[in-house]
Amino acid sequence: MGTVTCIAPVNIAVIKYWGKRDENLLLPINDSISVSLDTEQLCAKTTVMMSQHFKEDCIWLNGNKENINNPRLQKCLTEIRKRAKLTNELMDWKLHICSENNFPTGSGLASSAAGYACLALALAKLYKIEGDISTIARVGSGSACRSTIGGFVRWHMGSCENGNDSIAKQIAPASYWPEMRILILVINDQKKKLSSAVGMKRTVDTSELLHYRAKYIVPERTEKIQTAIMNKDFSTFAELTMKDSNQLHALCLDSYPPIIYMNDISFAIINLIHSYNTVVNDIKVAYTYDAGPNAILYLLEKDMPQLVAILDHYFPPDNNNLDSYKRGIPIETEQLSQDLLEKIDSKVQEPGKIKYMIHTTVGDGPKYLESPKDHLLNDQGLPIRLTSPLV
Amino acid sequence: MGTVTCIAPVNIAVIKYWGKRDENLLLPINDSISVSLDTEQLCAKTTVMMSQHFKEDCIWLNGNKENINNPRLQKCLTEIRKRAKLTNELMDWKLHICSENNFPTGSGLASSAAGYACLALALAKLYKIEGDISTIARVGSGSACRSTIGGFVRWHMGSCENGNDSIAKQIAPASYWPEMRILILVINDQKKKLSSAVGMKRTVDTSELLHYRAKYIVPERTEKIQTAIMNKDFSTFAELTMKDSNQLHALCLDSYPPIIYMNDISFAIINLIHSYNTVVNDIKVAYTYDAGPNAILYLLEKDMPQLVAILDHYFPPDNNNLDSYKRGIPIETEQLSQDLLEKIDSKVQEPGKIKYMIHTTVGDGPKYLESPKDHLLNDQGLPIRLTSPLV
Repeated sequence: MGTVTCIAPVNIAVIKYWGKRDENLLLPINDSISVSLDTEQLCAKTTVMMSQHFKEDCIWLNGNKENINNPRLQKCLTEIRKRAKLTNELMDWKLHICSENNFPTGSGLASSAAGYACLALALAKLYKIEGDISTIARVGSGSACRSTIGGFVRWHMGSCENGNDSIAKQIAPASYWPEMRILILVINDQKKKLSSAVGMKRTVDTSELLHYRAKYIVPERTEKIQTAIMNKDFSTFAELTMKDSNQLHALCLDSYPPIIYMNDISFAIINLIHSYNTVVNDIKVAYTYDAGPNAILYLLEKDMPQLVAILDHYFPPDNNNLDSYKRGIPIETEQLSQDLLEKIDSKVQEPGKIKYMIHTTVGDGPKYLESPKDHLLNDQGLPIRLTSPLV
Repeated sequence: MGTVTCIAPVNIAVIKYWGKRDENLLLPINDSISVSLDTEQLCAKTTVMMSQHFKEDCIWLNGNKENINNPRLQKCLTEIRKRAKLTNELMDWKLHICSENNFPTGSGLASSAAGYACLALALAKLYKIEGDISTIARVGSGSACRSTIGGFVRWHMGSCENGNDSIAKQIAPASYWPEMRILILVINDQKKKLSSAVGMKRTVDTSELLHYRAKYIVPERTEKIQTAIMNKDFSTFAELTMKDSNQLHALCLDSYPPIIYMNDISFAIINLIHSYNTVVNDIKVAYTYDAGPNAILYLLEKDMPQLVAILDHYFPPDNNNLDSYKRGIPIETEQLSQDLLEKIDSKVQEPGKIKYMIHTTVGDGPKYLESPKDHLLNDQGLPIRLTSPLV
């Protein structure tokens, strides 16, 4: 019997992955670049256990037993078992998998990337697999390959038909640019959301512009932002990040039927950031949006006190929610000058449009937790925490 | 002394004009196709008068005296005087111009196209100019060239440097497809709006995708929609109209900083239309959006009673505003089946999100009004109606 527990980060792309060239192997139509967030604030945690006593493979997600026959999960397991270095006897043992996120599900924060990265890493250790693990995570959820690595990460699209060269590699560790900060703004939104898998398939099938982007625009942008990261050139990094987020959502809108992930509050944040950058005559903050209305802001540590004060002014929190409004690394806000507020061209929103914010930083990537108290499964291979009673 | 009064229609593009190749001559980077609306519901009306007694050129717009030195207006006057067929003596006479719209300004309905078309046509008659007038309207406001003609209209981008072949021509008159109806949904919106002139310049300067669209996508779409019009093939017409509207707004979003004209209600209408078309398994309605949040819907006469009943259900009018909510051609709404409402995947909005609607049809284009009682200027060349007192 063996047990492995691992945590893996959420990653936020600055050059976006949108579109697959192979739906089965989850091979992308362009390279992408992301930042892995500190697991202290946001992470998936997974315990995997194999035992001769288990009757069948089982999985629990956030305290609920889920269907082990989920096709993406099965693809990961197949890939793992293909590369396993175990004896035949051990290969027959069944698996129990238990996974949790340390952040609310349904917040619109992508959890599948962290989850599949964590699963791939935990299983890789359990099955004694060596070498690149990102390709295993990738067949579960494309962008999960980027969550297998810390710091600034590039997912190389590759060119092999079998996907063996479609892997994630580190550009620079978190410590390379320690001033970088991330502020996640979770937006209140009732709208049902189209999954990014369905969304990107629709864009690939219906937007001619997407193919132009993948072929001609992304290659240049990817090189430029990688150079900006290496030079710690924040304003170039920020400008490219914003342009690439806008282009992703432009191509969603160019799809048929159109896909709309952002809402009026997302757009109001975009306008506020541009107005703020214009007033301070510098690009101090960048926004990026994934398949939902939540804004993820990149900025340097020194600019956080002013930025959060501005957000508090234009997007006041709901008074009933003040305790849990600011999460993550504590933030000192600064007193804003009247002059700055007068120059910013934005309107004060009704309270509560931003549900809460999470302040985090770039993280070192996944970690194996060796202490038995960290395991999510008990000695019998059953979840320690359950949301619904065990059936 | 001579007096001419003319009315000209608003036109709504189905293949959009977005981007100039020449900012001075207002030459576009692609062909566009539009529908001229019936002047009964929406039009500009202009009276022009020349007299040896006038001291200087003057203009009144919607009852207010405006600056005659407006550069676009001056370009029109220069163009007119260049092509005039008058004696030298008459050419020295000064002009009085008075123009009004029969629809509320500030509604976000583009009035400059109708206005410049009307001005060009009125002046052309006064100055005895023959041949194409659309090029004169064009130098005032690009899309105004399309409002000089009724029915279904194509603005050919042309290739001459002097713009002489960048002209509008009729594809088919209004009577060719008499079942076509237009429903304008005026949306409540407080947001300051970026003018389309500034917006398209920003897109030309910053969106690489725009140039791909102009070169590779629009030429094919233009031919296809022209064929759809000639075949009265509504579903092809509708699909291309929606795709082109979405692409225009996609390219606005791909601009830097991004331009956002639509809002949550615009997007909710888009989603409703797609859901409705899916449920009825046919493309019965198309939406299109210009540089603002108002939806313009194209549909056939027979589908109007059901569509308006659906709009009344999902976007209920404000009770305080029922009298002026439905404008233009009267609409009989039908009783909706519960089955249809259950299948449509949309949510009922709070009342008043749509301010009012205007039901209209394709129109015959501009008209000269010969009766003296139609003139907007009196015998002294002064406006009959004034908003602010004459200074």
